[in-house]
Amino acid sequence: MTDDRPFDLVLRHARVATASDVFDADIGIRDGRIAMLGRGLPAGLREIDAAGRTVTPGGVDGHCHLDQPMAPPVRMADDFDTGTRSAACGGTTTVIPFAAQVKGGSLQSAVDDYHRRAEGRAHIDYAFHLIVSDPTPTVLQQELPALIAAGYSSFKLYMTYDDLKLDDGQILDVLAVGRQHGAMAMIHAENADCIEWLTQRLEAAGRTAPRFHAHARPMLVEREATHRAMALAELVDMPILIVHVSGREAVEQIRWGRAHGLQVHAETCPQYLFLSAEDLGIDDSYQGARCVCSPPPRDASNQQVIWNALADGLFTVFSSDHAPFNVDGPNGKKPGGEEVPFRHIPNGIPGIETRLPLLYSEGVLGGRITLNRFVELTSTNPAKAYGLHPRKGTIAIGSDADLVVWDERTFTLDNTMLHHAVDHTPYAGRTLRAWPGLTLSRGEVVWDGTTFHGRAGRGEFLRGGEPTLAPRRHSPRTGPD
Amino acid sequence: MTDDRPFDLVLRHARVATASDVFDADIGIRDGRIAMLGRGLPAGLREIDAAGRTVTPGGVDGHCHLDQPMAPPVRMADDFDTGTRSAACGGTTTVIPFAAQVKGGSLQSAVDDYHRRAEGRAHIDYAFHLIVSDPTPTVLQQELPALIAAGYSSFKLYMTYDDLKLDDGQILDVLAVGRQHGAMAMIHAENADCIEWLTQRLEAAGRTAPRFHAHARPMLVEREATHRAMALAELVDMPILIVHVSGREAVEQIRWGRAHGLQVHAETCPQYLFLSAEDLGIDDSYQGARCVCSPPPRDASNQQVIWNALADGLFTVFSSDHAPFNVDGPNGKKPGGEEVPFRHIPNGIPGIETRLPLLYSEGVLGGRITLNRFVELTSTNPAKAYGLHPRKGTIAIGSDADLVVWDERTFTLDNTMLHHAVDHTPYAGRTLRAWPGLTLSRGEVVWDGTTFHGRAGRGEFLRGGEPTLAPRRHSPRTGPD
Amino acid sequence: MTDDRPFDLVLRHARVATASDVFDADIGIRDGRIAMLGRGLPAGLREIDAAGRTVTPGGVDGHCHLDQPMAPPVRMADDFDTGTRSAACGGTTTVIPFAAQVKGGSLQSAVDDYHRRAEGRAHIDYAFHLIVSDPTPTVLQQELPALIAAGYSSFKLYMTYDDLKLDDGQILDVLAVGRQHGAMAMIHAENADCIEWLTQRLEAAGRTAPRFHAHARPMLVEREATHRAMALAELVDMPILIVHVSGREAVEQIRWGRAHGLQVHAETCPQYLFLSAEDLGIDDSYQGARCVCSPPPRDASNQQVIWNALADGLFTVFSSDHAPFNVDGPNGKKPGGEEVPFRHIPNGIPGIETRLPLLYSEGVLGGRITLNRFVELTSTNPAKAYGLHPRKGTIAIGSDADLVVWDERTFTLDNTMLHHAVDHTPYAGRTLRAWPGLTLSRGEVVWDGTTFHGRAGRGEFLRGGEPTLAPRRHSPRTGPD
Amino acid sequence: MTDDRPFDLVLRHARVATASDVFDADIGIRDGRIAMLGRGLPAGLREIDAAGRTVTPGGVDGHCHLDQPMAPPVRMADDFDTGTRSAACGGTTTVIPFAAQVKGGSLQSAVDDYHRRAEGRAHIDYAFHLIVSDPTPTVLQQELPALIAAGYSSFKLYMTYDDLKLDDGQILDVLAVGRQHGAMAMIHAENADCIEWLTQRLEAAGRTAPRFHAHARPMLVEREATHRAMALAELVDMPILIVHVSGREAVEQIRWGRAHGLQVHAETCPQYLFLSAEDLGIDDSYQGARCVCSPPPRDASNQQVIWNALADGLFTVFSSDHAPFNVDGPNGKKPGGEEVPFRHIPNGIPGIETRLPLLYSEGVLGGRITLNRFVELTSTNPAKAYGLHPRKGTIAIGSDADLVVWDERTFTLDNTMLHHAVDHTPYAGRTLRAWPGLTLSRGEVVWDGTTFHGRAGRGEFLRGGEPTLAPRRHSPRTGPD
Repeated sequence: MTDDRPFDLVLRHARVATASDVFDADIGIRDGRIAMLGRGLPAGLREIDAAGRTVTPGGVDGHCHLDQPMAPPVRMADDFDTGTRSAACGGTTTVIPFAAQVKGGSLQSAVDDYHRRAEGRAHIDYAFHLIVSDPTPTVLQQELPALIAAGYSSFKLYMTYDDLKLDDGQILDVLAVGRQHGAMAMIHAENADCIEWLTQRLEAAGRTAPRFHAHARPMLVEREATHRAMALAELVDMPILIVHVSGREAVEQIRWGRAHGLQVHAETCPQYLFLSAEDLGIDDSYQGARCVCSPPPRDASNQQVIWNALADGLFTVFSSDHAPFNVDGPNGKKPGGEEVPFRHIPNGIPGIETRLPLLYSEGVLGGRITLNRFVELTSTNPAKAYGLHPRKGTIAIGSDADLVVWDERTFTLDNTMLHHAVDHTPYAGRTLRAWPGLTLSRGEVVWDGTTFHGRAGRGEFLRGGEPTLAPRRHSPRTGPD
Repeated sequence: MTDDRPFDLVLRHARVATASDVFDADIGIRDGRIAMLGRGLPAGLREIDAAGRTVTPGGVDGHCHLDQPMAPPVRMADDFDTGTRSAACGGTTTVIPFAAQVKGGSLQSAVDDYHRRAEGRAHIDYAFHLIVSDPTPTVLQQELPALIAAGYSSFKLYMTYDDLKLDDGQILDVLAVGRQHGAMAMIHAENADCIEWLTQRLEAAGRTAPRFHAHARPMLVEREATHRAMALAELVDMPILIVHVSGREAVEQIRWGRAHGLQVHAETCPQYLFLSAEDLGIDDSYQGARCVCSPPPRDASNQQVIWNALADGLFTVFSSDHAPFNVDGPNGKKPGGEEVPFRHIPNGIPGIETRLPLLYSEGVLGGRITLNRFVELTSTNPAKAYGLHPRKGTIAIGSDADLVVWDERTFTLDNTMLHHAVDHTPYAGRTLRAWPGLTLSRGEVVWDGTTFHGRAGRGEFLRGGEPTLAPRRHSPRTGPD
Repeated sequence: MTDDRPFDLVLRHARVATASDVFDADIGIRDGRIAMLGRGLPAGLREIDAAGRTVTPGGVDGHCHLDQPMAPPVRMADDFDTGTRSAACGGTTTVIPFAAQVKGGSLQSAVDDYHRRAEGRAHIDYAFHLIVSDPTPTVLQQELPALIAAGYSSFKLYMTYDDLKLDDGQILDVLAVGRQHGAMAMIHAENADCIEWLTQRLEAAGRTAPRFHAHARPMLVEREATHRAMALAELVDMPILIVHVSGREAVEQIRWGRAHGLQVHAETCPQYLFLSAEDLGIDDSYQGARCVCSPPPRDASNQQVIWNALADGLFTVFSSDHAPFNVDGPNGKKPGGEEVPFRHIPNGIPGIETRLPLLYSEGVLGGRITLNRFVELTSTNPAKAYGLHPRKGTIAIGSDADLVVWDERTFTLDNTMLHHAVDHTPYAGRTLRAWPGLTLSRGEVVWDGTTFHGRAGRGEFLRGGEPTLAPRRHSPRTGPD
Repeated sequence: MTDDRPFDLVLRHARVATASDVFDADIGIRDGRIAMLGRGLPAGLREIDAAGRTVTPGGVDGHCHLDQPMAPPVRMADDFDTGTRSAACGGTTTVIPFAAQVKGGSLQSAVDDYHRRAEGRAHIDYAFHLIVSDPTPTVLQQELPALIAAGYSSFKLYMTYDDLKLDDGQILDVLAVGRQHGAMAMIHAENADCIEWLTQRLEAAGRTAPRFHAHARPMLVEREATHRAMALAELVDMPILIVHVSGREAVEQIRWGRAHGLQVHAETCPQYLFLSAEDLGIDDSYQGARCVCSPPPRDASNQQVIWNALADGLFTVFSSDHAPFNVDGPNGKKPGGEEVPFRHIPNGIPGIETRLPLLYSEGVLGGRITLNRFVELTSTNPAKAYGLHPRKGTIAIGSDADLVVWDERTFTLDNTMLHHAVDHTPYAGRTLRAWPGLTLSRGEVVWDGTTFHGRAGRGEFLRGGEPTLAPRRHSPRTGPD
């Protein structure tokens, strides 16, 4: 059945890049979707000339935090308005932040609350990951299965942080539910006891400056938890995705798991390519608080390990782990407005807008990864991992017209260029070689390289389906035998 | 510039699969190329309804032997006519057989000779790999660089077989030329001395039945050569592709190489998924001669290792290693018409036509790999590895309209169904779950599921460019420092 | 200063074996110690002719349980009387059972109680390991340091069993004390949560026969805890000894640890060489309760891994893990006298008497390990690990005259031949090729191959010093920096 | 049968160290052998008071070159006179240099010639390794078996050096003979082709200063050959000993081999602990020629890997690889008396006298290895590996009274202190913490800490027997099956 209506928009002369291919074509868009690919498409109601520039699928940020309730006085600087605005200006067209269960609270109510926070504010489309912090029988038997079925098909489990962490038995319980209902499990893998033990020793020694945050989380803390997470997943026979892998020892564990036939996916983030422990300070001044995140950035040799693992396929996804805390003021890195011991510094750094430009500049243009791999890591694979593909994550017929046209130009990054509500970027002063010249969300220009054209509330909630990174498992195991 | 001509062909209602995506679209074809993708395309001069069936890019068989000169009386049963006919009927639309230098002969003359063998015979497009068996100064300094520049951008090196093998110094020499000129190197990795030593011992013990072929080539013979090949490539800083990896020990070496940052690609073949050493015979009768190939098939546990490595991304390409020797008659597995000791059995089995259906049946429909991975392994990656992408290897605007429409139906394979000139298939009696219902080569139907519609000579020679599996290296190393 | 007194005993014509050497000599004994080695020693007050038979140092059983308080009605069948009697008849002259802290109780009081149990009963010398199950500040700051200084220089930590297990933070605390005071840490490495999770699932499915004990403790449960234990020890920079390693996956972890520079020792036991999971039953009858121990025995391929690791030096010590529970009656494997679900079967099997003969028969005489390695594993290394060397663990001047003369003869083992108070041996029916023909404890014959000549109370308590397996660490780390 | 004769010598108050133990005893010596160990031994004809100093077995240097025929004008500076003198003054009482077959010559005649070189010159006992450089049928079927039976039970194979190297098939042939006749095989593992290829490139670039020797032999050259040697040995099922392992990559391979059940032993040498590639020069001056050896010394991180592998048991033996070439004059590092390109610099450095003091100082006194391990590495294990134990390699009844009394004192090493005929030591200027205060060879004082008391010709030839590092293999495999 031929659709004779003109295209709403034709993006002409695109150098289209998918996770597989790069080809020259016009992109015909109708009803917010990609209707046609070809050269010399008929005229659209609107025409944009890409002029041979590279066009990638809009980024899918599979790991970011927006307006997530925190213990006062800490508060995230970005809500769905500023956060998705910032994302769009950096080429990301789908975000998947976290609806976090409060211990003692219900998972459904966390979801309900989070919808209220998103509604009317998001400029681009969004799905929710769940955070399961209290796997009560009700959660395991009712809420979680129902929510997975309703389109919340991924959840994150924490092995550290007092208010979030699960013990091994709880992790097994949740993974088993995830396996039965076809969800994807993300795991924050750091050993909580080790961190607490080291932290207490450091505190007792008066070592509380931000840089000691890294001393409290040496790589073995991450390595151990990574191994343990894989063992738990192996026991349940459930795929998992290890988030924010920071360096060699965790990478080695994941390689080991793959070689032993485990289905373990992995994520890394810009901070592990572009920051190091020295960014947390080289003396006891509190300059480094802004770069406190977990796991902490490591060093140059670990950055190289991460680059290699991005290139060779170890990593499945590349996310921002955007955690928008101000450095100044009473709600961010200095609760109460004062510098605090590292234990009390909110963990996380902003990066939702810089994720794609950093990787495009240093990875693609720096000759470290192919353009296909860039698309796969930043868009296609996260869409597949969280059940949003092929609506999101690619440039293909029927997919949402979420597109980025890349301007390749060299400039120095400054926080004033960014659109988040955070008062800094850890990448200020860095030279970038590319930035989105155009971001389309469902065929609408939301960013034109200069000006943001979004509209709070235009972003839609996306229901996540089963992950499609691997073949569906046909015969779920129902228990040990 | 709009092209107003009607499409030569529209393939409607295709479930299009690329290495990245699966989407529903019509495919508009003009001048043998994919001109447009979209739903409800305008009518073409010819229309074919895929009716929702899966459509993949035509297979690229990156490893097959056709009409390759052999020492008499042995002769390959397939020439470019029967070989490409068979390929097309099995869904393969590009073949890359080998122009093999004779020791003492010139490389250019081997290429010239091989063109003469192909011309007027091929039904589908073809490129040539070179086989460098005698890297004289002339070859290294003149012929090989000139040929790489002329579109023969991949070469194969042998670490075994008396008439082909190079020593380590020669391999370094050739790899260094390959690195400088941007070629891809394929390596047959088996330790020649070990094989000869074992063979002599077996012969001295009267153990010459076909099954002892496997005893003469235990896995350590392959493992050692794999490690050595990686070391040689590391020294030169040149990517390589290890062909026909057969099992666990070689896979472990390749994983080790990747983890140490080496750019090592790997190929496997159907025989390592579907045959085992028992197919070479379980007693001293000569039944097993037909399955003699190198490396030999291993066992069920190694088949599983290969499946896992296909699924998890270790393997880059999946090829046939089609080596068309008859079982009967004087030119094949029984030179002189008589059974011979295993040393004298020509190595290799046919498989150019069954490669895709076997992997589609057991891999995709069997739930072991995704459809995307199937496309990547059988078409996109070999096209990238040998510099034929994006003309070949994908379904994208501007790519050749080399397409396969899959019929999913269950039947038992028999050699009479196949179109090669070989008198057997090792997969006879096996149940398949799919077969190409249609194969298009540059927009022409060459196989319609029942009848072959090719035309000897319609196949074109393809010039290979630089491999695009990884970013191009910007600063070739010119020597040790 | 020449000691002109005659020897109390000369053991003549011994084929003396140490961990290093094998040589022919007479052994002159005075005051319970080895006073002289040489050929043609002067006459002693007593003379025994070894007649060229092999003489090894008496065994040091670094892992055995005797009269350890259990929750009623369960009770160990062996106390210090029967246990050390059994040990001596099997060639062991030193035992190191466990003084186990009760949660909520003091460590010192556990030691005091355990001395009361030993006094007047032991036939051979003994030291105590501590079991720390409740590392309160008092334990960490006072009791444990004081006890280490007083000769209780090794302790065992459990990662499983509700009444014993420590969490990771507690393990770090105890290891840090151990490091500071020069103790040796033994770790029972199994993941408690995984076991509980699987057990509950098995119980819910009605799978409670003894064989399901092995299903509740698959090898990954041991592998994970082994990795975690090494990580915790690495953090504290403390050597550890992983007890009762059962098979491949744990062995691989330990190899990994060693290769990464960690000082990790390992122990295995006869059950992992001679039993398999099938000994826990192949159906749902309760025959297998007697072989329930943790980790469970695995299979033949894992037995081979253990043999290889014994031969190549991976294992430091070979112990019995003697846990003397009767099969029948109300105090053992059937609490209440009735068969019970596997969760409630006391874990452990007897083996204090069979440890040396089994390894001598199958290891030394079976050609799998050298005689030197036998001595090292069964005597020298446990003595070094627990600070008893050179008084114990070797045949050297000044060492206690704890000696075994081996009779090499073939016979079938039966529980009636043994001297423990346990109503079975899992090795009944097995053919042995050697048994101690003579056991000397401090120069006294306590077993003559036929008759036990011990005397309750003659065994002395041994104070353990610092481990001497590795150089002493000169600069203990005092904390993270 | 008591021997009533007085001891020829009593070494009193020794702190005796074996590979297993450390104990205080007097050592009674009669007829050159250790007759008795005990405290307060009867008076001897001669008495020496060790005064509590440490006494170790005399060193067995399992890898040293003395008076080995070289291509003129190069000549080794040490013959059996100066070489064994130097050894003895450094605490070594047994040397095992090499009887090297000349290509085209007979193995027996090499042995005969080498005996002529040794006779009347050696001050301490000696055995011979064979070097098989031309495994003709006569060598394989007659000479080698006869020589092994006659006490030449170890041979060395080279994978590099034009005049010595064997190809893989030849290595298999020789290993198979070794397996059948119970010999030990030493392998020099470096890939000859890689070295030649790199050398030619370096030469073409004018890079011929000594430091480029290290560039021509990067670690992968050693790693590859190590892997290959293990594969060849695995095929034949023959234990091997990889000589002079230099760093991480080879160590990793050996760990891999052990973990896979291969019986592979390894040796390292002082140069890999105490020298680095910088000792070959940091510019293009020819200062570094004196430190040119193969494999080349690496760097500090590789030194640490070697230390760890010495401590944890990876290495079986610690040898000198003494290769006595003068720096000055026409016969050594400057053939013709002039500086030469690195290709022409004779490979090797002196070290027969400094081997033990260096390891005792930095290993034992430096707290890196135990005293037991020192003895095992330097004496007991080489004696076992080459079939000389227990006559050599330990302090035990019946063993030769080859003993070293250690003076622990701090001084700066200078070549004038040494007794070799070489004009330099690479360790000059280094601070040592110990030196032999006394060396006894078969009960005779050959070095008293100040003066050499040897006597050319007193050294005896030792017949080597089967290696005893591992159990004898009972059922030699006779061929593939």
